[in-house]
This record gives sequence, C-alpha cells and structure tokens, in this order.
Amino acid sequence: MMSGKDGAPAHLGGALAQFVVDSRWDDIPAAVRHEAKRTLLNHVGCAIGVAQDPAVRTALAVMRPFSGAPAATVIAQGVRLDPMAASFVNAIASNLLDYDDTHLATVIHPAAPVAPPALALAEQRGLSGAATLHAILLGIEVACRVGLGVSPGHYARGWHITASAGVFGAAAACAKLLGLSPAQTWHALGIAASQSGGLVENLPTAAKNVAVGNAARNGLLAALFAEAGYEAAPAAIEGALGWARATGDAIDGDAVAGDLATRWEAARNTYKPYPAGIVFHAVIEACLGLREQLGGAADTIDRVTVAGDALLLARGDREVRNERDARVSIHHAAAVGLIRGRAGVRDFEMAAVTDPALAAFRGRVTAQLDAVLPRGAARVQVRLVDGSEVIRTVTTPRGSLEMPMTDTELAAKFRENAALGGIAERSEALVDALWAIDAAPSLQGLSRLLA
Amino acid sequence: MMSGKDGAPAHLGGALAQFVVDSRWDDIPAAVRHEAKRTLLNHVGCAIGVAQDPAVRTALAVMRPFSGAPAATVIAQGVRLDPMAASFVNAIASNLLDYDDTHLATVIHPAAPVAPPALALAEQRGLSGAATLHAILLGIEVACRVGLGVSPGHYARGWHITASAGVFGAAAACAKLLGLSPAQTWHALGIAASQSGGLVENLPTAAKNVAVGNAARNGLLAALFAEAGYEAAPAAIEGALGWARATGDAIDGDAVAGDLATRWEAARNTYKPYPAGIVFHAVIEACLGLREQLGGAADTIDRVTVAGDALLLARGDREVRNERDARVSIHHAAAVGLIRGRAGVRDFEMAAVTDPALAAFRGRVTAQLDAVLPRGAARVQVRLVDGSEVIRTVTTPRGSLEMPMTDTELAAKFRENAALGGIAERSEALVDALWAIDAAPSLQGLSRLLA
Repeated sequence: MMSGKDGAPAHLGGALAQFVVDSRWDDIPAAVRHEAKRTLLNHVGCAIGVAQDPAVRTALAVMRPFSGAPAATVIAQGVRLDPMAASFVNAIASNLLDYDDTHLATVIHPAAPVAPPALALAEQRGLSGAATLHAILLGIEVACRVGLGVSPGHYARGWHITASAGVFGAAAACAKLLGLSPAQTWHALGIAASQSGGLVENLPTAAKNVAVGNAARNGLLAALFAEAGYEAAPAAIEGALGWARATGDAIDGDAVAGDLATRWEAARNTYKPYPAGIVFHAVIEACLGLREQLGGAADTIDRVTVAGDALLLARGDREVRNERDARVSIHHAAAVGLIRGRAGVRDFEMAAVTDPALAAFRGRVTAQLDAVLPRGAARVQVRLVDGSEVIRTVTTPRGSLEMPMTDTELAAKFRENAALGGIAERSEALVDALWAIDAAPSLQGLSRLLA
Repeated sequence: MMSGKDGAPAHLGGALAQFVVDSRWDDIPAAVRHEAKRTLLNHVGCAIGVAQDPAVRTALAVMRPFSGAPAATVIAQGVRLDPMAASFVNAIASNLLDYDDTHLATVIHPAAPVAPPALALAEQRGLSGAATLHAILLGIEVACRVGLGVSPGHYARGWHITASAGVFGAAAACAKLLGLSPAQTWHALGIAASQSGGLVENLPTAAKNVAVGNAARNGLLAALFAEAGYEAAPAAIEGALGWARATGDAIDGDAVAGDLATRWEAARNTYKPYPAGIVFHAVIEACLGLREQLGGAADTIDRVTVAGDALLLARGDREVRNERDARVSIHHAAAVGLIRGRAGVRDFEMAAVTDPALAAFRGRVTAQLDAVLPRGAARVQVRLVDGSEVIRTVTTPRGSLEMPMTDTELAAKFRENAALGGIAERSEALVDALWAIDAAPSLQGLSRLLA
C-alpha cells in the first residue's frame, strides 16, 4: 500500500512522509534555509514578548501538574517541563497575539504548532541546531501544504487552520527528529489527522490557545506513537472517510504533494512589523509616513479618512472597547500611527485603548470603501486644521511578501519583544545564538538563554 | 449572553451547562441511576479484559514519561499516572475491541471518553462514589445529546463520533466533579469543541485509539482550563463558524437540549454480550440456539445459510484474515456459535481465525439478502447431512434495547473479562464494589482492587 504504480507513494501522507525522510539539510537552497532561521527568530521573540501575559501564565499553571520529568525549556518562564507540556505552553505564547509568522496563502501561523515540539524534543535528546532547524522547516512545509490543499474552504467553514493543519507539521517535524522511517512518518501524519481540531468561532477567546497548544503537543504524540508501532489508515488525509472530507473539502493533491523539494511554501512565510491584523498594516504604515511628513505635529490634524477595500472595511470599521478590537480597528491603527508615531505591542494594550488622546483621535477617523484599491492596500487622507490636505497610499506594507521585513528589522522586533518579556539584558546574546543556530552542536546554549 | 428571552440559556452550551450544574443525584430516577452503574461495571470490565493487549501496553509506555505525580489508577496495570495520562490509557483500553457500551441512536461508545477522566479526577481528589457516578451519567448524557444533534450525518461524513462527541461528555463530567459554575461549565464545553477530533477512516488502525484517549484527557483539560479562567465563544457548538457547522452539520437543537432531566439518553445505553459488531449479534444468538437444539452435534451440519438485511450483508460477507475481520464476519459468527457454542473474546482472536475447524466451517456458510428482515435481525438455516433442516430467526438479540443484558449477565461478562485480564481472583470483590459504588465515600477501595 506504500507505493503507487510508478513507485511513488500512492497517498498524500506517503508522499509527504517520503519527502520528509529524504530531505537533506545541505540540499536545501540557502535562501530557504535562511528563511527558516528568520522564522525561528521571529517565533521565539513573540513567545518571549508575552511571557508575563495572564493567558500564558494560566496555561503554564494548568499544565505544570501534568508534566513528566523536566526536559524542555518553557520560554522565558524559568521553568522546564516535559516536551509535550513545554510544547503546549510555548505554542500558545508564540501565537497569543497573532504577532507571529503568517503563511499568507493559507493564513496559517506555522511556527507556533511546529517549532515548539521540535525545540523541546531536540533539547531533550541533545540534537543539533541544524537538525532542529531542518525539522522545523520541513514541519512548516508540511503544515502549509496540507493547509493549501484545503484552502480557502477549510478556514471559511470554521477550522482554525493554524491548529487543524498545524498538527501535521508538528508530527512531521518530530518524525524527522526521531529519525522515523517513511512508513512510520506516514503513520505519524495519519495519527495527526485523528487529532486535528480548532475552531474559528473560538478565535476571540482563550479557547483558541488550547487548540494551538494541542496542535503542538499532539503532533509530538503522533510521532511518538508511530515510533512505538501505532499505525494509521493509508488515506487518513484524503480518504473517503478521512480528514479532508470530514472537515468538508475535496483536497487538492498537487497543492499538497506537487513539486516537493522544489516549491517551498516555507519560504513564503511572512512576519509582522505590527501586532495588528495584517490588513491594517498598510493603514499603520501610511500614517507613520504621514506623521514623519508632518513633523509629528498631530495637533494640526483636523480629520482623517482611511480608504481601503471591502475586507478592510468589513473587518476594521468598529468601536474599540478592548485590546482585541484595537488590533483590528482602522481607527486605532490610524490613531497610534499619527499620534504616537509607533505601533508596538504596548500601543494595542488596554492602556492604549483607554488613552484619552487616542480615544478622541479615533473619533476623528472615517473609514471609506475604495473598491479599486487592491487587497491589503490603504489610502490615508489627512485634513489639517488650516484646511490643507496630505495623502499617502501604501499598497505593499513592510512584512508583505513583496516587502519582507529585513533581518535587521526582525532583530529589532526581537529586541522589543525581549524587553516586553523582561529579559532585555539577554536579547543580544539571544539574537546572536539564533542567527547561529545552524552551527550549534546542541540547543544547550540557546536553552540556557531562554530559561 | 448567558440567558435567552425567557431566562433560559440562549445557546446549546449554556443549556447543557445549566443542566449539568443543576442536576442533583437524588432527583434522578432510580432506573437511570442504576443504568449508570451498569455502564460503569461494563466499562471497567472491558478495560480489564485487554490489560495485556499490546495496543494498551504501548499506550501506557508512550504516555508514562509524560505523566506528572501519580494520582490515578491505570486499570489492571499496577501503575498510577496523573489524571490526564491515566484517562488516556483507560479510555483506549475500554474501547479497544468495541466490546464496551453503545448508544445505538448515535453509535457512540460513551463510557470510554467519559468515565476515565471522572474516575481519575475523583480518585485524585477523594470524591465519593455517588459524585463520580453522577458525573459519569451527566457526561454520557451530554456526549450522546451532542452526538444526536448531528447524527447521522456526522459519522457518515467521517467523524468517529465516540471521540468527536465524547470530548464534550468528558468535559461535562469533569466540570461537575470540579464544581464549576454554569458559565465555567459552558466555557469547558466550548473549549472541548476546539479539541474535538477523530476519523472513521482510521477506525481499522491503532490511530483510532489515540483519538479516543484524547477525548478523555482533553475533556479533563477543558474543564481545568475553564476552572482557571479560560473562556470560549458562547456559540462554540452551534455558531456560524463553530463545531457543528465546521464538521458539516446544522445541529438539531431539540435533540441536544430538549427535555433535559426528563429524557435520558444515558438510559438508552446498551452492552454487548459478544465482542463482535452489533449487527452480528443476531447471527451469533441464532447459531447458539441452534447448537443447543441440535445437541451440540456440529458434525451433523452440511451447510448453513444466514439471511439478513442489506447492512448485515454489506458489512459481514467477507474473507476472514485477521481478528478485525473475524469480529465483523457473518461466516465467523456462525462458525463460533455452531462449532464452539460460545462467542467470547478468545473466539475472535488470531488463534480462532486460524483454527482449522472454524476456517473449514466458515466455508460452508452462505450469506443471503432478505430485505424483509428488520435491521439487526438474522435468520439462520442449517441443512444437516441427512438432508433435514432447522431454522431459527432472531430479531432482538440480547444486548439490544428491547432485550437488555441482565445485571447477572453483565456480572458474568465482567468475570470473563477479569479472567482475560489476569485478575480473576479479584473479580467478585470488584463486582461487589462496583454495584455498591454509589454508597462508597471514596474510590479508594475500588482503586485498590483495580491496581
């Protein structure tokens, strides 16, 4: 059942498994390998940034009594747990604010489910930095490809794809680190299919976190069960009663298993410069530019009109009552950009929501549909008290595929997160360790810095 | 958001939560309470029976390093693990052979996901037997009602409903034992929704076990997170991007939340006298009756014709190569009934599959469609070597809703399982302890016997 008529695996799980097993780090293009490093830097930084957040502390407190021997670092918590429990908490932290990486074609945040179990397993077993990074890259590739095969219907139907497809990536990454055979890796993916879950309906709540944490720990569990001899159905992913059909989709086999090792979805990963919904990034960037242009004189502004496409309007023309609203508000995005001249994590927290200056300014912002503007673009028109106007249009904000964040910008974001997480003094050492992770014989040094 | 216009909860999760919180053990009809005890007796027996099975031993071995402080008994393994890990293994064991309980309207095996976390939590916290049994009853009720609301489409689409609906029951049972508020219980159900999984495609493989184990441990996790303050979306179950729609169904709200505390789905639970697919029970019973009628003289039989409805024929007219085939084979069911005069666990194991006498006899059995026979019925026609014929028709085999197993039969099944699991010497004490569980101040006595 393992091979099709031309010797290639006959099922999607088999094809992905063969790819994972066959992949050699040195054969992967340097740019793709470097992207994996950028993904990891961004991932770790996001987890550090929210180390003090109550949602993360609660996840740690709930999971702690259910951990075996401490073997894996919980990022910036001064605690080690077993690899399953540590993966669970780290995945939740890195994805908490949706400030982590985004594979735009699927809207998967791929590092959150994939990197934590790989880091935990590698730390426990003393594996090299290159092996870890390789496993993370392959896991992200698998998660994004499985997600691509059922997009956009899967998310539209209510599946939180970061969790529901992420579990496949976590299983693949762990299978690679455990050195599983093609058949075992295939079974790991099939066992992952029976553990897939996570709902869009729950995204505005902490229940989101549990599903993301599960994707990480259950992917590891799938690989461990496959290693121990558990099997899964050959067509667990695409079969008549398998994952894709049960979740509602006929799966696109080429999207999942076409051009393996030549097309790299993992290289299409993107990183956010601002902890707000991606569609608001153009608004923020236009406003930051306008503020510079105006010399920071916010008090000369009379009113602001933000034009964007239907998605921007549908998502972002809202009253801002809490942090979640702030992160998806046209009005708040414009206000922080023009008033504060920055848009960092603190600028979307409750203190910013209730800041009288921001609140008043939000009331002077009007959202307007411009169906001609492309998805993700924004045009901001500022009318000054003297009656004059300035206009700025941004179509490819930083962090988009067309205008990726530079390595320098990613390092700066990391430092900001390190400061938020209370470990600013370690940020330079961490940045250095992460850029050099592929040369590290083990994760010991990194783990010590992350404790 | 907690109340509808007449004060009743406006959402399905809210209604179920209110029911769980309001329920008082003494208010529940005696027959329903007794059914819960029968369910538990059957559940524990099934888990004991497969204690030596490699699939169970593997689950224990994989999970053991990921357990916190030992606080909950793993049935018949001489091991205690933390409540999540113990629940995981016990759920797998009790459901391993599908010899456990069945809620026929949904085909949920409800005790497997629900009872293990309740038993584990109650053991850890020193709760009473009545509180435990009450929580199990309510959890089963919730699982079956949620399942009923999406049946039969849910299973038909590929969801292994024992796991995918079972997690709600596990969450409800644990919420009751933890004394959660209505709002917290509602959140626990919503968090459970984001953890629902399990695929029919994987049923012929060990991957099934992982999903069933997850339903148990993740239901417990959902309740613990709700207790710690995590929230879920009010309409996590029935919302536009919630569980029912994502899994493919518009949910029947009345089936889920109608007649709460008066209609008891948990009282419609059934137990199998034979470790074979339910549709084969009539075949077995007819053959056992015929054997008695013939005075056990199997060598006088020339050939056998088994008639049944389309489902029986579709499922059961097959070559028998392994244990799984044996449990869903018309030919094997007839052979063990007529040749061996019994149909216990051993009669469907590999030694029976390869037994030359059974193998030869299977070849003399012909399956035949009789569209007039009702679902679940069978007519067995035996032609003897002297040319004479005897016929027996069974429409309501033992274990059906119409002909439930008696308490005596359930105790006998338990003893057989205890012998298979290697703890025959404790079976009488266990039967006594389980029938008296509702009077036990704690689970200490039961747990000692189950160690």
